[in-house]
Amino acid sequence: MSEAPRRGRRPGASGAQAAILAAARKSFATAGFSGTTIRGVASAAAVDPALVHHYFGTKADLFIAALELPVDPRALLLPAMEPGPEGAAERLLRVFLSVWDDPVARLPLLALVRGVMEPSGQQLVRDGWLPVVVGPVLGALGVDDLERRVPLVASQVIGLIIVRYVLAVEPLASMPPEEVVAVYAPTLQRYLTGPLP
Amino acid sequence: MSEAPRRGRRPGASGAQAAILAAARKSFATAGFSGTTIRGVASAAAVDPALVHHYFGTKADLFIAALELPVDPRALLLPAMEPGPEGAAERLLRVFLSVWDDPVARLPLLALVRGVMEPSGQQLVRDGWLPVVVGPVLGALGVDDLERRVPLVASQVIGLIIVRYVLAVEPLASMPPEEVVAVYAPTLQRYLTGPLP
Repeated sequence: MSEAPRRGRRPGASGAQAAILAAARKSFATAGFSGTTIRGVASAAAVDPALVHHYFGTKADLFIAALELPVDPRALLLPAMEPGPEGAAERLLRVFLSVWDDPVARLPLLALVRGVMEPSGQQLVRDGWLPVVVGPVLGALGVDDLERRVPLVASQVIGLIIVRYVLAVEPLASMPPEEVVAVYAPTLQRYLTGPLP
Repeated sequence: MSEAPRRGRRPGASGAQAAILAAARKSFATAGFSGTTIRGVASAAAVDPALVHHYFGTKADLFIAALELPVDPRALLLPAMEPGPEGAAERLLRVFLSVWDDPVARLPLLALVRGVMEPSGQQLVRDGWLPVVVGPVLGALGVDDLERRVPLVASQVIGLIIVRYVLAVEPLASMPPEEVVAVYAPTLQRYLTGPLP
């Protein structure tokens, strides 16, 4: 797509959108996902709450928009869940690697991961990322005990991110994607659909 | 043990030990494990290199001493490896949980984990913790392909630490130790002794 020619002044719509996003980012970072309300964000951005819904949908959608990711992770991950529980871990890992093995695509996600060592970032992952992205995506599989499975899956995925991409420990850092899938799919499949103690 | 009565002046020995430890901590934090030498630490502490060896042993021992952990993790973990590969993951997890489930014992370790998001801390884990602690401990099992197994084990253990203790995501955060062992032992046993792709 070609860019529209720039005018002398920003149109009001994108000004309101930018103000809403800035207010949302500030609220999610300080009050967390659960402490943020559409009404509070609207008030901070000096717009009507209906306008927030109009531009960004639900609070979960606003949370995703505020993360400024290149693509909505739910739109990327949900199709991998559709064929059902069998082979779900393998499909999940392939989507995961297609994003994380791209040094540009993983940048905004790395910022999110770095945040887990600070209280505000912890709230964003625990009260935001897990219930907004991981929960609904895994929930699409229709497995029982979803609440107990989410932290198990998260524990292996976060650890893989830290050792492969943050610490870059060899030979895992340079392991071909097919081998990463072969190593981690059995683990994630068991956490997703296997028996729990 | 009762404490020795305090004198007006610190004895020279503990003064030298403290100076060596301070120099070591500074060097490990700025130059990493591989960039630190006994000679460099001795020079920074204005003592003879032989004195560093006398008080602290090898560079690996000095690294452990500089971490100021309540107990040498090698001394804690190595006995769990002695009975051999079978059941090693379960024994490893029990030792791990005995330390990490204790809110006081885990404090200095949490500081180490927080560091993985910063370059100097990354160097300490990648070039220090993994080769000094994790490598030799897992190496005691005598398994093949040790170099490839260390990052896999690390990826699950670090992820478990972050989700159970740093993010404290329920229900994993409050899961009884026996259940944690039941969930994670099969994963770690496969990474330790199972076939690799």
